[in-house]
Amino acid sequence: MTALNEMTADALKALHARLEQDYASLKARGLKLDMTRGKPAPEQLDLSNGVMTMPGNRDYFTASGEDARNYGGLQGLPELRALFSQVLDAPPAQIVVGNNSSLAIMHDCLAYAMLFGVPGGTGAWSKEKDIAFLCPVPGYDRHFGLAEGFGFRLIPVPLTGAGPDMDVVEKLVADPAVKGTWCVPKYSNPSGETYSAETVARLAGMKTGAADFRIMWDNAYALHHLSDARPPLANMLEAATEAGHGERVLVFASTSKVTLAGAGLAMLAASPANIAWYLGHAGRRTIGPDKLNQLRHLRFLRDAAGIAKLMEGHRALIQPKFDAVAKIFRDKLGARDVARWSEPEGGYFMTLEVPEGTASRVVALAKAAGVALTPAGATHPYGRDPQDHILRIAPTYPSLADVSAAAEAVALCTLLAACEKRLAA
Amino acid sequence: MTALNEMTADALKALHARLEQDYASLKARGLKLDMTRGKPAPEQLDLSNGVMTMPGNRDYFTASGEDARNYGGLQGLPELRALFSQVLDAPPAQIVVGNNSSLAIMHDCLAYAMLFGVPGGTGAWSKEKDIAFLCPVPGYDRHFGLAEGFGFRLIPVPLTGAGPDMDVVEKLVADPAVKGTWCVPKYSNPSGETYSAETVARLAGMKTGAADFRIMWDNAYALHHLSDARPPLANMLEAATEAGHGERVLVFASTSKVTLAGAGLAMLAASPANIAWYLGHAGRRTIGPDKLNQLRHLRFLRDAAGIAKLMEGHRALIQPKFDAVAKIFRDKLGARDVARWSEPEGGYFMTLEVPEGTASRVVALAKAAGVALTPAGATHPYGRDPQDHILRIAPTYPSLADVSAAAEAVALCTLLAACEKRLAA
Repeated sequence: MTALNEMTADALKALHARLEQDYASLKARGLKLDMTRGKPAPEQLDLSNGVMTMPGNRDYFTASGEDARNYGGLQGLPELRALFSQVLDAPPAQIVVGNNSSLAIMHDCLAYAMLFGVPGGTGAWSKEKDIAFLCPVPGYDRHFGLAEGFGFRLIPVPLTGAGPDMDVVEKLVADPAVKGTWCVPKYSNPSGETYSAETVARLAGMKTGAADFRIMWDNAYALHHLSDARPPLANMLEAATEAGHGERVLVFASTSKVTLAGAGLAMLAASPANIAWYLGHAGRRTIGPDKLNQLRHLRFLRDAAGIAKLMEGHRALIQPKFDAVAKIFRDKLGARDVARWSEPEGGYFMTLEVPEGTASRVVALAKAAGVALTPAGATHPYGRDPQDHILRIAPTYPSLADVSAAAEAVALCTLLAACEKRLAA
Repeated sequence: MTALNEMTADALKALHARLEQDYASLKARGLKLDMTRGKPAPEQLDLSNGVMTMPGNRDYFTASGEDARNYGGLQGLPELRALFSQVLDAPPAQIVVGNNSSLAIMHDCLAYAMLFGVPGGTGAWSKEKDIAFLCPVPGYDRHFGLAEGFGFRLIPVPLTGAGPDMDVVEKLVADPAVKGTWCVPKYSNPSGETYSAETVARLAGMKTGAADFRIMWDNAYALHHLSDARPPLANMLEAATEAGHGERVLVFASTSKVTLAGAGLAMLAASPANIAWYLGHAGRRTIGPDKLNQLRHLRFLRDAAGIAKLMEGHRALIQPKFDAVAKIFRDKLGARDVARWSEPEGGYFMTLEVPEGTASRVVALAKAAGVALTPAGATHPYGRDPQDHILRIAPTYPSLADVSAAAEAVALCTLLAACEKRLAA
């Protein structure tokens, strides 16, 4: 195979004609595949089927003898906070375990900030004229949508492979209107990168114009290894605390991709002042979380070793899917030199970088052939990728056969769109 | 026994001396009883122990074949909405089933109103200088605390035995700053009264100064009968819709006191526009509720008959406690003519109305004797009962023996405080 940009016009035309034929055959197959969302596959959920009959008959007492069926326990079961303390690297007293959605805890933190303000701030954010939030790109569409929903001005910041470009970040946060940043620091959604120790140190120590700046540290994939590389992630909360900015960091995590996507547990870890602030507002909102589901998780996960074993089970199921997609991209796209993709060491996503201006075309071509992809632009603020070149690939949910068929289709559509672009040039 | 106000000064002094002796004996017993909160007793929670092993092995498919373990399903399982449709008297499409706390749904409705505004309004409530909310008294402290937390001005409105005094309400709501009212329309917390058809009709039809007025209709005790009287409650949502004010009503309910207090399901019923509004904001906050707990409830409750049977079980356990308290109040306080109390036909509470200015003294006396009562004033906005005369009695949680001991203690403290007041006069 020849690189596209080294082909003669005639060769390009011939290739295009062949790809058109291949695409017609692809359409004729009548595929119906969905690679839009980072959902665990049914076999992954099966790993946690043990919870389906838990906590079990008459097993409703917490370690301290409280009846988990009744009201109360706003901060979450102490014994569960002790377990998650090992995952979150924060003391149990600085952890809140809630219900099933970490996005909901992020939402509530921002809603409380808007309505009431945060520790270190001067009042409700909603009283301020302009609030901006940094959005490392490519990033998670639900993060950006949440901030957009609150009316924040979204500022894209490029990711470097070791986290956001800190030179850019440090300049931007000098503006007091910039109140915070999103971060998915480990196996980032969707680039797969892990923030370097230097990035963490600079985020912890940087001077911000806003005294009440918040780092929304969504450590969603802390445990989600796809290789033995396991790049380390420095402890953001500790680093910020040591730098005198302990209030800056809000750490989020969940078991949505550990146990059950819709019925897991979400967590918040933060400084004592932030935890007191959160609980103060959450205590008006609810009497407490579903402690039976917390007990269920405690019985099922048991300890850190139980969690690690479960995560190995996930890896065994999804690593082959990531490998298959990467192999197909290498085989079909490699020598053509039209695209780059991530081969992540963990997480739930790959990025596929296609020629500028062709990402939407690839999505449209795939859709017409029965393969649903996350919309082009979803990885950027306001759903707009100015270069129209980043695709998010979510290999976990479909079966290995389906994900391979989908990857073949995506590779074909990528190549076809690239050909079209060159021919039109 | 003679009524206190008919006693001679000497007789009163003699009674006071005897009561002081009785109180000293009470203290010597070293009781440790808690009547502060409306929590179900362990035996009530036992009625729902069936859910502890549900939904059961491999039972995770919804009626439409969706995998309830995975993400999604923001509005709640359709089959569960169909079941609750019979309880809420609203179409399934106009119901949302969420997680475990109806207070949380109320909070979120008000938070969305503050941040974004509501259908029929002109924008975010937080942009307005003054927001007031009506608080029928005696009422639920968490309702008042929620509204106070949002900075609303709380206006008490007297309850009449058939709901709030509508002459007062109609005058107050003419003020555009008055944005809404709390209501616990059936077996009200704590008075036990049920709103009359006339009250419902007037709430539905009244002219409000605020175009975006909201009735927070917390139908928490819809199914919680304590007698066969079962006073009917008119359908508020229908009545308001017929009066052209469908957007006015937000109906809340939960299974917290049907199945498990901390691990039940909360619901919202409202007009199509309000449901779309709520889901629009909730969809930014979360990908969906814990559908496994919804499935658990569906399997356990089965149908309307299953719910009714369960509620009969609750009644069998708690009616004797209410009866015991009422009998003790009658025996100890009746002829003294110093107090009035409710003997509710449903719900979770009784009110005890003591002589003006003595409610806090009764609570303090009881506390010193080891009986914890809800703080005097808790039933009023800002925790202040200007007449200091209403106590909320929560008989459900303690055992029958304990609740009887507590009621004896409360009666004694009430009488002692009343004596003290008369002697001081």
